[in-house]
Amino acid sequence: MPATKFYYFNLKALGESCRLLLAYAGEEFEDKRISMEEWAELKPKTPFGQMPILEIDGKQYAQSNAICRYLGHKYGLAGSNIEEDLIIDQNVDFLHDIRAKAAVVHYESDEAVKAKKHEDFTKNLYPVMLKKLNEIIEQNNGHLALGKLTWADFVFAGVYDYVKTMLQMPDLDEKYPSFKKLKESVVTLPKVKEFCANEPKTMYDF
Amino acid sequence: MPATKFYYFNLKALGESCRLLLAYAGEEFEDKRISMEEWAELKPKTPFGQMPILEIDGKQYAQSNAICRYLGHKYGLAGSNIEEDLIIDQNVDFLHDIRAKAAVVHYESDEAVKAKKHEDFTKNLYPVMLKKLNEIIEQNNGHLALGKLTWADFVFAGVYDYVKTMLQMPDLDEKYPSFKKLKESVVTLPKVKEFCANEPKTMYDF
Repeated sequence: MPATKFYYFNLKALGESCRLLLAYAGEEFEDKRISMEEWAELKPKTPFGQMPILEIDGKQYAQSNAICRYLGHKYGLAGSNIEEDLIIDQNVDFLHDIRAKAAVVHYESDEAVKAKKHEDFTKNLYPVMLKKLNEIIEQNNGHLALGKLTWADFVFAGVYDYVKTMLQMPDLDEKYPSFKKLKESVVTLPKVKEFCANEPKTMYDF
Repeated sequence: MPATKFYYFNLKALGESCRLLLAYAGEEFEDKRISMEEWAELKPKTPFGQMPILEIDGKQYAQSNAICRYLGHKYGLAGSNIEEDLIIDQNVDFLHDIRAKAAVVHYESDEAVKAKKHEDFTKNLYPVMLKKLNEIIEQNNGHLALGKLTWADFVFAGVYDYVKTMLQMPDLDEKYPSFKKLKESVVTLPKVKEFCANEPKTMYDF
């Protein structure tokens, strides 16, 4: 049994970026997809009562982005100095800013509030942020940072469909072709492609 | 004129953690507090149209937490390996999860929605998260990670009053004495104390 386990719901959402990194490295890992019933039992045993969880030799680590950064450093996908790491981090955090704003709308339970927020963000926020994100990718040779493949690209590829759904922008691929292209450049890397072809269908299409 | 400049509003909020780290290291830096009028002009010239910004020798970096991590590594306040860095990162990200939830309430413009969300989070979310945060600090010898002073503690100290305000919990110091104690342990470090004593009054009390 592999000593590395990755726990998340059977969703891409905040787990897929980590899975793609593990797959890229050819890391043998148990891809544990936790049902809601199992989660109720597992939750109090996790570091923060949250998933995803990366378990290595029995030690558990939490927080999706922290895990991605760790795997990035482990697998040679980080910067070559702390200034380069700062550039990766700032660009990833900007992507997460967009994700977080879209999530505020997506997870709003009051339909009237949700519609109002979506209208506000679609008018005043998303266009500026997405234009900037597109600029970053175009200035970085189709990557999210440093002009080359880094763990930031795996974060992007892992959350792209999730963010697109939360933004309620089914035409995002066409609006910003650089986005889809970046995602594709990651999920077509041989080991990643093999992983994606064999992973379980998720509860949703992201 | 120092080659290092730090740009933010005259607020603690998302800027203070970086300032405290710069102060701790005895870094000579220009502490640029930008007015709303100046911001309108500066905004399009920044990497993402956001502050804070750290400028080193003319090169600008964005994103508060990314800047703190960078300064932490620069000043010997990071982990001694990538597993330790992962622990710092996961704990800092958990703190930011609390901040982000409280911010959703704090920055809600619709008073009725705001009150409803605050009630929901105060009942169902904050108690569990704050209890866990308290456990982390108690298990780490009064620190946020690794049982010793790391850049995570500066993040905590910099955002604590801001988070307390957004949580609408003026009694947070009394509820979780470990929180105030951790903040105090940072702001009483000699160079940090000197910086805090001399910094401008901010627009708000956080």
